[in-house]
Amino acid sequence: MTRDWITGLKVVTGRGELLDLNKGLIKNATGYDFRHLFIGSEGTLGFVVEATVKLARRPKDLTALVLGAPGFREVMKVLHAFQKDIDLTAFEFFSDKAMAHVLEHGVAKPFDSDCPFYCLLEFEQLSEHTGERAMEIFEHCVEQGWVLDGVMSQSLGQLEQLWQLRERISESIAPHTPYKNDISVTVSKVPDFVEDVDKVVQDAYPDFEIVWFGHIGDGNMHLNILKPADLPKEDFFRQCGDVSKWVFEIVQKYDGSISAEHGVGMTKKPYLSYSRSEEEIAYMKAVKAVFDPNNVMNPGKLFDV
Amino acid sequence: MTRDWITGLKVVTGRGELLDLNKGLIKNATGYDFRHLFIGSEGTLGFVVEATVKLARRPKDLTALVLGAPGFREVMKVLHAFQKDIDLTAFEFFSDKAMAHVLEHGVAKPFDSDCPFYCLLEFEQLSEHTGERAMEIFEHCVEQGWVLDGVMSQSLGQLEQLWQLRERISESIAPHTPYKNDISVTVSKVPDFVEDVDKVVQDAYPDFEIVWFGHIGDGNMHLNILKPADLPKEDFFRQCGDVSKWVFEIVQKYDGSISAEHGVGMTKKPYLSYSRSEEEIAYMKAVKAVFDPNNVMNPGKLFDV
Repeated sequence: MTRDWITGLKVVTGRGELLDLNKGLIKNATGYDFRHLFIGSEGTLGFVVEATVKLARRPKDLTALVLGAPGFREVMKVLHAFQKDIDLTAFEFFSDKAMAHVLEHGVAKPFDSDCPFYCLLEFEQLSEHTGERAMEIFEHCVEQGWVLDGVMSQSLGQLEQLWQLRERISESIAPHTPYKNDISVTVSKVPDFVEDVDKVVQDAYPDFEIVWFGHIGDGNMHLNILKPADLPKEDFFRQCGDVSKWVFEIVQKYDGSISAEHGVGMTKKPYLSYSRSEEEIAYMKAVKAVFDPNNVMNPGKLFDV
Repeated sequence: MTRDWITGLKVVTGRGELLDLNKGLIKNATGYDFRHLFIGSEGTLGFVVEATVKLARRPKDLTALVLGAPGFREVMKVLHAFQKDIDLTAFEFFSDKAMAHVLEHGVAKPFDSDCPFYCLLEFEQLSEHTGERAMEIFEHCVEQGWVLDGVMSQSLGQLEQLWQLRERISESIAPHTPYKNDISVTVSKVPDFVEDVDKVVQDAYPDFEIVWFGHIGDGNMHLNILKPADLPKEDFFRQCGDVSKWVFEIVQKYDGSISAEHGVGMTKKPYLSYSRSEEEIAYMKAVKAVFDPNNVMNPGKLFDV
C-alpha cells in the first residue's frame, strides 16, 4: 500500500507571483522541485493556494495486534520480525504509564498481563495466509521472550477498540498538564535515545512522570512529562525549559529532529540549531530572501531574517 | 509495497560547504527540505558526496500478465480495472510496432492474436486469492471488449520471458537510428496526448515510423521515431528537430513534462520553458545563485545563468 502523495502545488510567493509546481505529474525531471521546498516551509515562502493529491486506495480488512514486551529493545525486535514478512500499515508503541492512564480513562484492558511496554501493529489481511503468518510471528516472538502477552483483532469492532489504547492517550494525560515533545531519530537509534532521555530527566527531576508513545516505525516519539500534582504550574514549566534543552542536546547527539511532525513555528525557533547546522540555516535565510525578499510571508516563524 | 527512498544526502555546495541533509530521518519538520532541492538538480547546486537510502523489501512471487487491446483508450480502462483491486508493481505499454520489432529480434510471441496495443502488468501474488482475482479482472476486461487476448505467467521463467517483450524494445529499434523522447503527462490525459502527437507527426512526415512504449502507470511515455531507410541521417535529424518543437508544444498544452526521467542537461535546455514558466526559471536561477554564486557546479546545464 502506498501513501497519499502531493503531486502538485499552486503557490503565490512573497513576490506576488503564482507558480504552478509540478502540475500533478508523477514523473518530472525538469530542474529544481520547488514543490518539496514549499512543503514544510510553514508559509514562510508563500501561500499554497491549491494542492493536488494522489490518493492511495483505501486499506482493506485491517487487522491489529496489541503486544506486551518486557523492554524497549524487545519492542524493536518485534518490529523487525513483523516488518520482514508483512507490510505494516502502523507500528505504534506506548509505555506502561501510558497504558495506566488510558485504562483509568475507561478503555478496556486488552489482556491480563502487565508489561513495561506495549506495541500496536496493524496490517491488511489480504488473505487468510497473512493472518496465519502474523500468528506464527507472534508465537515466535513469545518463544524468543520478546513478547509476554498479546491479542489480535477478530473484527472491525475489536480493531477500533484496540486503537483506543493508543488514540486516547493524549486526552487521558491532558488533566496532568503534560509538557509535550515531538522528536525523531533513525529507527535503529530509538532504544538508546529513549534510555538516555529517561536517565537525564529522572536524575534531575525524579518526581516527574514520563509518558512515552509514538510512531516507532518512523522513529517518531512523543515525550510527555506530567506535572506532579503539588508543583505550581510556573515552577513546572520553568523546570521543563531545562529539560527541553537537555532533550534537544540528546536529539543532536543522535542526529535526530527536534520536530518530527509539528514544525518549528515560534516555540522551537530558539532550538532549530540542534537539528540544522549554522550553514543550513544561512541557506534557508537566503532561499527565503529569494521567494520573499520583503519578509511578508509568516514573518517571525522558523528563524529571524 | 513501498519504493526505495532517499532519507539523507550529504552535499558540498558551490560555496564549498558540506551540508548533512535530513540525516536518514523518516519524519523531520525543521524547515526547508533541501534534500529534495538537490534531488534532480543535475549537479548544478553542488556535489552529492553521500546518500542514505531506505530500501523497500524485495518483492515476492511476482506475476505478470501481457494483454492485447484494441486501442489506447482500452489500455487505460484495463489499467483502472486492475489498479482498483490489485497493487500493481508495474504497468507498461507498447504499440504493435514495438511488438513487431521485438519479435523480429527473436523474442517469443506471447499469444496468437495481433493487437494494436499491448500492456504488461505485474503484481505480487501474495496469496492464491490475488491470482484468482487477477484472472477474474482479466475475464471482465475480455467481456467488456477492452482485451482481445492475453497470457499470465505461471513461473518465474515465464515472468522473465514476458518482460523481454518490453525490455528488449530499445535494442530492437536501435538499428533504425531512433529519435527518442521521454515525456510525461498526468495519467488521465495520456490517450488524447498520444493521439495528438501521432496526428501531428504523421501529417508532417507520413514516412516516419512511430514506436511508443512506456510506464503508463506513471503517465511516462517514450516516443521513438525511426529513420526511414532511404533518408540521409542529417535530413532525418533536421526534420526531427521540427518534430521536437511540435511535440513539446503538445506537452505544454497538456501541462506535461518535456523530460520525465532523463533530465534537461544541454539537449533539452532550449525547451525548458515548455514545462516550467518564466517565473519558475527565474527562481531556479536565483536559487542556483544562493548555492553556487560563482557558477562552478556543472555550468551550462539546465539553463544559462
